[in-house]
Amino acid sequence: MPSLRQFLLSPRSVAIVGQSNDPTKAAGRPLKFLRQAGYAGRVFPINARRDEVLGERAYPSLAALPEVPEHAYIVTATDAAVEAVEECGRLGVKVATVLADGFAEAGPAGVAREAQLREVVQKTGLRLVGPSSLGVVNLREGVMLTANAALDEKDLPCGRIFVASHSGTMIGALLSRGKARHIGFAGAVSVGNEVDLSLGEICAASLDDPDIDGYVLFLETLRNADRLRAFALAAAGRGKPVLAYKLGRSAAARELAVTHTGALAGEDDVANAFLADLGIARVETFEALIEGLPLLMRVPARQRDARPPAVAVVTTTAGGATTVVDPLAMRGVTIAQPSAETFARLAAAGIKAAQARIVDLTIAGANYESVKATLDLLLSAPEFDMVLAVIGSSARSQPEKSVKPIIDSASAARPIAAYMVPDAPVALAQLASAGVPAFRTPEACADAIAAALRRRVPRLAGPQQAPAKSSAARLLDELEAYALLDGLGIARPPSIAIDATGSTPPALPFPYPVAAKILSADIAHKSDIGGVALGIADGGALVAAIETMRAAVARHGHHLARILVQPMISGLGEALIGYRVDRDVGPLVMAAAGGILTEIYRDRSLRLAPVDRDTAHEMISEVRGFQALAGHRGKPGGDLDALAQAIVALSRLADDPTVVEAEINPLIVRPAGQGVVAVDAVVKILV
Amino acid sequence: MPSLRQFLLSPRSVAIVGQSNDPTKAAGRPLKFLRQAGYAGRVFPINARRDEVLGERAYPSLAALPEVPEHAYIVTATDAAVEAVEECGRLGVKVATVLADGFAEAGPAGVAREAQLREVVQKTGLRLVGPSSLGVVNLREGVMLTANAALDEKDLPCGRIFVASHSGTMIGALLSRGKARHIGFAGAVSVGNEVDLSLGEICAASLDDPDIDGYVLFLETLRNADRLRAFALAAAGRGKPVLAYKLGRSAAARELAVTHTGALAGEDDVANAFLADLGIARVETFEALIEGLPLLMRVPARQRDARPPAVAVVTTTAGGATTVVDPLAMRGVTIAQPSAETFARLAAAGIKAAQARIVDLTIAGANYESVKATLDLLLSAPEFDMVLAVIGSSARSQPEKSVKPIIDSASAARPIAAYMVPDAPVALAQLASAGVPAFRTPEACADAIAAALRRRVPRLAGPQQAPAKSSAARLLDELEAYALLDGLGIARPPSIAIDATGSTPPALPFPYPVAAKILSADIAHKSDIGGVALGIADGGALVAAIETMRAAVARHGHHLARILVQPMISGLGEALIGYRVDRDVGPLVMAAAGGILTEIYRDRSLRLAPVDRDTAHEMISEVRGFQALAGHRGKPGGDLDALAQAIVALSRLADDPTVVEAEINPLIVRPAGQGVVAVDAVVKILV
Repeated sequence: MPSLRQFLLSPRSVAIVGQSNDPTKAAGRPLKFLRQAGYAGRVFPINARRDEVLGERAYPSLAALPEVPEHAYIVTATDAAVEAVEECGRLGVKVATVLADGFAEAGPAGVAREAQLREVVQKTGLRLVGPSSLGVVNLREGVMLTANAALDEKDLPCGRIFVASHSGTMIGALLSRGKARHIGFAGAVSVGNEVDLSLGEICAASLDDPDIDGYVLFLETLRNADRLRAFALAAAGRGKPVLAYKLGRSAAARELAVTHTGALAGEDDVANAFLADLGIARVETFEALIEGLPLLMRVPARQRDARPPAVAVVTTTAGGATTVVDPLAMRGVTIAQPSAETFARLAAAGIKAAQARIVDLTIAGANYESVKATLDLLLSAPEFDMVLAVIGSSARSQPEKSVKPIIDSASAARPIAAYMVPDAPVALAQLASAGVPAFRTPEACADAIAAALRRRVPRLAGPQQAPAKSSAARLLDELEAYALLDGLGIARPPSIAIDATGSTPPALPFPYPVAAKILSADIAHKSDIGGVALGIADGGALVAAIETMRAAVARHGHHLARILVQPMISGLGEALIGYRVDRDVGPLVMAAAGGILTEIYRDRSLRLAPVDRDTAHEMISEVRGFQALAGHRGKPGGDLDALAQAIVALSRLADDPTVVEAEINPLIVRPAGQGVVAVDAVVKILV
Repeated sequence: MPSLRQFLLSPRSVAIVGQSNDPTKAAGRPLKFLRQAGYAGRVFPINARRDEVLGERAYPSLAALPEVPEHAYIVTATDAAVEAVEECGRLGVKVATVLADGFAEAGPAGVAREAQLREVVQKTGLRLVGPSSLGVVNLREGVMLTANAALDEKDLPCGRIFVASHSGTMIGALLSRGKARHIGFAGAVSVGNEVDLSLGEICAASLDDPDIDGYVLFLETLRNADRLRAFALAAAGRGKPVLAYKLGRSAAARELAVTHTGALAGEDDVANAFLADLGIARVETFEALIEGLPLLMRVPARQRDARPPAVAVVTTTAGGATTVVDPLAMRGVTIAQPSAETFARLAAAGIKAAQARIVDLTIAGANYESVKATLDLLLSAPEFDMVLAVIGSSARSQPEKSVKPIIDSASAARPIAAYMVPDAPVALAQLASAGVPAFRTPEACADAIAAALRRRVPRLAGPQQAPAKSSAARLLDELEAYALLDGLGIARPPSIAIDATGSTPPALPFPYPVAAKILSADIAHKSDIGGVALGIADGGALVAAIETMRAAVARHGHHLARILVQPMISGLGEALIGYRVDRDVGPLVMAAAGGILTEIYRDRSLRLAPVDRDTAHEMISEVRGFQALAGHRGKPGGDLDALAQAIVALSRLADDPTVVEAEINPLIVRPAGQGVVAVDAVVKILV
């Protein structure tokens, strides 16, 4: 039975609604490109005012066609596009792709137009790409349903990589830049506003294609993250790697995403956590997105308990190698020195190289035999996970000496990557044509290697629980919040609620000194309004503190009925742990060093929730401020096992659809073996 | 009178000592390259075993030449190279460049060989480039004294940029990559080990060349920083910009620099401070080093009190523009929205563009008139310091529409930069040939723009005082250190020294509570051995504290004679300020938030000393931890003016050649208007 994949990417018949007779205009390009690419299916240009376009017969409307096309590319202006989609729905067209903009990004009228499109989809079963889609391309079959001027090419190379992008322009950038690097693609989709088919669904539809080996994603938002998640897990299951570039590392770029696509972009470390947990490798440089997949295909996703990866570097130029080692080290990749045994094997093979971290063949010389023998020895040395070859001048002048051995060694079990120091287009073309991961700049090389080595098998299986959207929520008071923590097994101090109006010291079940706090679900930031008193020494001081609080709360227009009293808890330090259901990615758990400096340094670690203990320990190791708890400078260490256990426990809130947000701040970290204690908690639940 | 510049870069006669008959070998290349480039001077190949090389007459020795050549390139093996240098000295050769390695990086024997070279230089006046130099190139005159295989090119483009590099390979990378981008160079020098002529001196020697407009430096270390400093100041005086890429951002790269060049590489933020204070723009990506200088030539170094620069972005593709805006914003560059007046002028010119931060011409269309009119309006708008044009598909398919207007507008007073989103070699070549700053990747574009806008006029004038090297030094005790602070005008608490053996409470000139500390120049880290007691409430407690300290000090094998007693000083927070004479760059002043977190977050700001108050305030604004002192979250602000004044005062130690190091930690920062107080100080002076 024909599938979405076929109608979307391999249609047997296509209509171009609004095809222009001017091939230099956007609306004139699809027919020109289809013919240029030799598309073998049936093509029906539709033009209401002409009966011929670009020398071919044009039809006045979809209804006038001799058959119902499988895929219609609608390149008319906005209002006509809505009408055309409605007609597609009526006629039973399988997939429509819409070029026009003027939808969600264009205010209320645009939002209303999107609703019209959505209604057609729901009522008729038509599947829609866009609006604001620069089109759908399947290079293998000449399906060029695109208005992208950058694809006006007669000889785009075919490959086994599929591209999906929120930005249509970037498809042209990827395909044209790939062509210049002899890197080909299988197909590409500009997903536009994702009114119906989302980026994740489109990619998922193509997973059965045996001629697609991997995916390159250009992301502007994490809109429809649930579909992206399902695709990523399915892709991992098939062993098809996914490489992503995501805009929005800066606040300025996130702001632009709103004006440009109408979509809100979340914080960047949320995106990082999401992509990493799903086994999607993320690069930071645009060129690594183009050059990176051949490497990713050769570097299996690491198991979570695997040793940290080690890279061997062999070079014909120490200075050139350092330009890659520097950005690699900045990204946390370890360049390991070969073992004594490996150096002995090199020496036995007649390779003269000093015992140093980088295997420098300057003395041995850039000749085929030296380079080949060295590569083969390093590729078989047990201490390495990857070999990086950095080739100097000979890459340009004599690639047969230094580049050919890389190609000839690239079938080894371990991956090899190559960076060419001078301009070396011939060598790069040879490497790319042989499928060897090769890089033109040191930064893209380091970026892609780091991304490939960071990639882990997805941590989560199956779809997430859908976040409850836009329901009303309320805060718990601190005692109610503690009841929730009790259920999760997170320790907190004994706490009693006392009447805030009493004037005699209450009897307490624990000794002084104590802490007293206003107890109210209406006040989220107690300490900001003078609602917290610490280190209260005796009953008289407690009564006085309560009086002061009552006055402070009254000044802020609240009535204070109850006070929470707890013993003072001391420890080696503090942590902040939090849970929330993110609008885009769903349940998240966070660990951070507490206090004002955490805010200043943005020092926190995030994961999709729930997490296990190993992952919680990983999170702890990523928070730099926790170094102070690790027994720094002779100080005793904190109970990081208990901290990890608390993170795991809090992350289990992902199983409780009523909890929207929970933050324990501070969580007191006591010395190793003595546990952690939550001394404040704010919890928000759905009502 | 002929100058060093002439003998070095424009010699009328050259000898190649050790010229081989095999042009594929390093020693065979210089003669081949000289002939290939059409060098017009006299060339004397020297080969002890042949009387003909590459079809030309060879001489048996330097002494056998019919004249003394001005410049000798010595391409023999190490020991023969030392002999050849000695012969050059004897004969009166002006400049010798040495290819061989095996010197300082090769252990004691190599160090001894360097000493031999240095002796020749001192005794004879010969000037030396290298050893380990891949050579000297002057492309305008065909002076190809190089063994770099990557320069085996017949048509290297000439330009007005001079290159100096610690790495010889990188010269080949720069020139070949420049050629591919249609960016030419005037000349290049691989400086090698800098036994005599340093990178700074070589560049300085070329400053009089009217055909050199700017400099590109590839740095592995800051060895000979005094010469680099003198060159940078002189270059700034001539308005010739300097762009640098420096290896060693990672510890791994700094370690490699030692094994590779024998030079120690200092901490990276020291290099950053040094380059910035001298007005040298630093880029982080290698491609920005190649593409960046045309931009730097058009962006004048900013005065230190100028307003923060603002960049306008105009684009034919919003998605593509965001790929540059994102890394720009990550580097702190502000993309400013045009003013209402500018938008009104755009509208009056018929340009349809939404009022947004990026001027998006998608609707107006990528046609010559729209792009040209928009550029001209933005280039003349008073709110901008630079205009960045980001061109989409048309850069590849129709550069006459979107790229030609950039070239035609580039003569405006304000600088313009261009980024091409698709692969667009023709457009990039047109832009480069017209001298318009143009970029191939979004990351290099953002890197170069940020570096150009960050560049300031040098903060210092004239040469620095040479640091006293390797003399013996001693620590001052705390009272002596306070005397030094008194001289600088930095406040500290009243302090008295008391006998550590007394058993009755001393009479104090200030009230309790007090702090007591061991007073000894022999113990630098008092608190680590229990030598500090804080918050002592009364005389009895003071006696007890002293007794405890005496025992603690005795356990560490010291005798405790005196105790320093001070009143307790409280404030809003703490700072650490420090001064030291760096091995490479000389006097430095540092500001950091105090405490353990500073170490963890590496949160500090450095400048060459001395600094003025504006610079001290800049330093304070760069330390993120000081945000907690700026009145964060409703808290009162600290006395940052007094903190700045203390930084200025400490930096004046640069005038005192006896002080090697001084650190005030902590400096207590009190509320605004109440000053700062140094409550501990460690000072090291030469003896």
